[in-house]
Amino acid sequence: MALGRVVCGEIIAGCRNMTTLGIANEFPASLSDVYAPIAHDLRLAERIFDDELKSELPFIDELVATVRSYRGKMLRPSLLLLTARATGTLTEAHHVLAAVVEMVHMATLVHDDVLDGADERRRQPTIARLSGNTTAVLLGDYLISHAFHLCSSIGDSFASRRIGAATNTVCDGELLQNHRCGDLSMREQECIAILERKTGALTAVACELGARYAGATGSVCETMHEFGLSAGVAFQIVDDVLDIIGEQKIMGKTLGRDAELGKLTLPIIHCLAQSDSVSSIQLHRVLEGSTLKKQGHGPNLDSASPCMAEHVGNAALRTNVAECVADTASIEYAMSMAEKYVTQARECLEDFPHTPARQSLFTLTDFIISRPM
Amino acid sequence: MALGRVVCGEIIAGCRNMTTLGIANEFPASLSDVYAPIAHDLRLAERIFDDELKSELPFIDELVATVRSYRGKMLRPSLLLLTARATGTLTEAHHVLAAVVEMVHMATLVHDDVLDGADERRRQPTIARLSGNTTAVLLGDYLISHAFHLCSSIGDSFASRRIGAATNTVCDGELLQNHRCGDLSMREQECIAILERKTGALTAVACELGARYAGATGSVCETMHEFGLSAGVAFQIVDDVLDIIGEQKIMGKTLGRDAELGKLTLPIIHCLAQSDSVSSIQLHRVLEGSTLKKQGHGPNLDSASPCMAEHVGNAALRTNVAECVADTASIEYAMSMAEKYVTQARECLEDFPHTPARQSLFTLTDFIISRPM
Repeated sequence: MALGRVVCGEIIAGCRNMTTLGIANEFPASLSDVYAPIAHDLRLAERIFDDELKSELPFIDELVATVRSYRGKMLRPSLLLLTARATGTLTEAHHVLAAVVEMVHMATLVHDDVLDGADERRRQPTIARLSGNTTAVLLGDYLISHAFHLCSSIGDSFASRRIGAATNTVCDGELLQNHRCGDLSMREQECIAILERKTGALTAVACELGARYAGATGSVCETMHEFGLSAGVAFQIVDDVLDIIGEQKIMGKTLGRDAELGKLTLPIIHCLAQSDSVSSIQLHRVLEGSTLKKQGHGPNLDSASPCMAEHVGNAALRTNVAECVADTASIEYAMSMAEKYVTQARECLEDFPHTPARQSLFTLTDFIISRPM
Repeated sequence: MALGRVVCGEIIAGCRNMTTLGIANEFPASLSDVYAPIAHDLRLAERIFDDELKSELPFIDELVATVRSYRGKMLRPSLLLLTARATGTLTEAHHVLAAVVEMVHMATLVHDDVLDGADERRRQPTIARLSGNTTAVLLGDYLISHAFHLCSSIGDSFASRRIGAATNTVCDGELLQNHRCGDLSMREQECIAILERKTGALTAVACELGARYAGATGSVCETMHEFGLSAGVAFQIVDDVLDIIGEQKIMGKTLGRDAELGKLTLPIIHCLAQSDSVSSIQLHRVLEGSTLKKQGHGPNLDSASPCMAEHVGNAALRTNVAECVADTASIEYAMSMAEKYVTQARECLEDFPHTPARQSLFTLTDFIISRPM
């Protein structure tokens, strides 16, 4: 599907030259460079992740092996470890905390895939598709439980408290998104509030704890919290753009589910707001039809909500949405918002000494808006 | 449905004279007496529970109000608080931990109701029925996240570590039960291993932490862990018996789902093991038919697993199962096993001074096997 590249033009600069993301631990060359200052630490964090999830029950080990294969960019542990290097001394606690934030992230992916009815994750079947929704719900619980168990092993309740506060906020964001599902009157401000909660909270706490356990001052910890929040919001905006215009083969996960499930993302909200445009009216009709269809759908586990639905593979809907948002330049608008958040994130780094880790954090924000599509 | 009372005869002694359990905080007279030594502490724990779950988002407050209305026996917080009183000094940390174990329990209820397709909980619609499965999965996540967040507020990572270990074990138990769903060759030993994990782990850690934060010795903490484990297993055996022979009006929750979903409980396993009995052969046929029907069922979110199914209200299946297990005296057998665990629990209390709290723990084990049906 070439639409994405056409629509984005030069906005997602450089993405044509980037290799696609490989499977776990096979980062594209540029990302390997970014991670160079923490390459060894990432491996240690991975080992802690694996050790924590080892089970005496072989079928659980098999499920965990599948989860492990979803590990890709390691964005959250990398943010935590790079922040530690950029702001002070990287310690053993950082390796544990890096594993914790990745485990929390994996738990949200596994549950999200159930709720979105997604089939594919990192070019492989989702847990829900492989082993059923029941197993996926329980495995998500297993991951979140182990994340908190692991977090408490550093022997200091501060990290548990901050991780707990962040996951509370992530749940707020997910619940809010679900609550507003299908409401075509949603405003941009509310959409941003959801992004800050469901994605920004975890990247923010990753950077904050990276700084805190490196011995940074309270003010530096706050600055790095801001950095993580802005970087996380930018990342999620691009993710939502790619849900509309990305190529499934390159992204390696089910796309197009947002519109199908009535989740209003930034490009969609921007398009709907151009009320005098033909495309906006058309998008209104398309989404109303899709949401109504979903609510009236046959035997479904979730008749009370339009947001949990069986897979219908609605490629036509996706094309419709992509055409509407292209007409109103809403992809460009969303990407300009992502760039705004990336700029905010970079400003947070201004006062830090120019170390390789600080440079990597800077480059990582580049990666956020120039991911392969 | 009179079958339960006929089958159990005198085994569930005294249940005919007990009032039914009321809604939250309205305990039957006898249970109020049992909770007398901790009545004020339970109220403080409830306040902490409510404060932790308060949200700036009104729709979340409404969901939490529904969860609160499921609060009934408060078994786990009561075990924790009574253990504290029986073994040492009850502190503020106990009130927090009592709220934590209740919150973890509520999270498991909310997720279980999704996975079991249950309609009713404490005489009210389940969250899944009221607001859909998506909301219920996310709300369960919200509860477990807040439980860990609250736990870390006591400023000592030990409790977080032990609660985390317990929830890891609960997840193991739930995953194991799901993994063995529909396998009619399951043995009693494996069934007990599931009960110990999915129910015993949380009651065990409640009693262990009750003792630990009261200043008890390591050996007393271990003994109270044993007490909680045995009490939890006994409680779950009776719960599984009531799923077959309890009266829905009195229990106030959806019953009969275990057999329908292929979950093999102690009475069913005992009946199936009487391979020369007509009822055993009949039960085999009934369960095989039910499980096969489920696997081949129409559009379903969980085609890969027989364990997540829409509600089919199979009263006939329940009656069939109840008749088979009655014929092989399998209810009596399961109740005798529950009594064995209650005896084990009581033995743990032998060396403690005869305080009102110790007497309440003793009486609570009575309640476990003489609940209204």
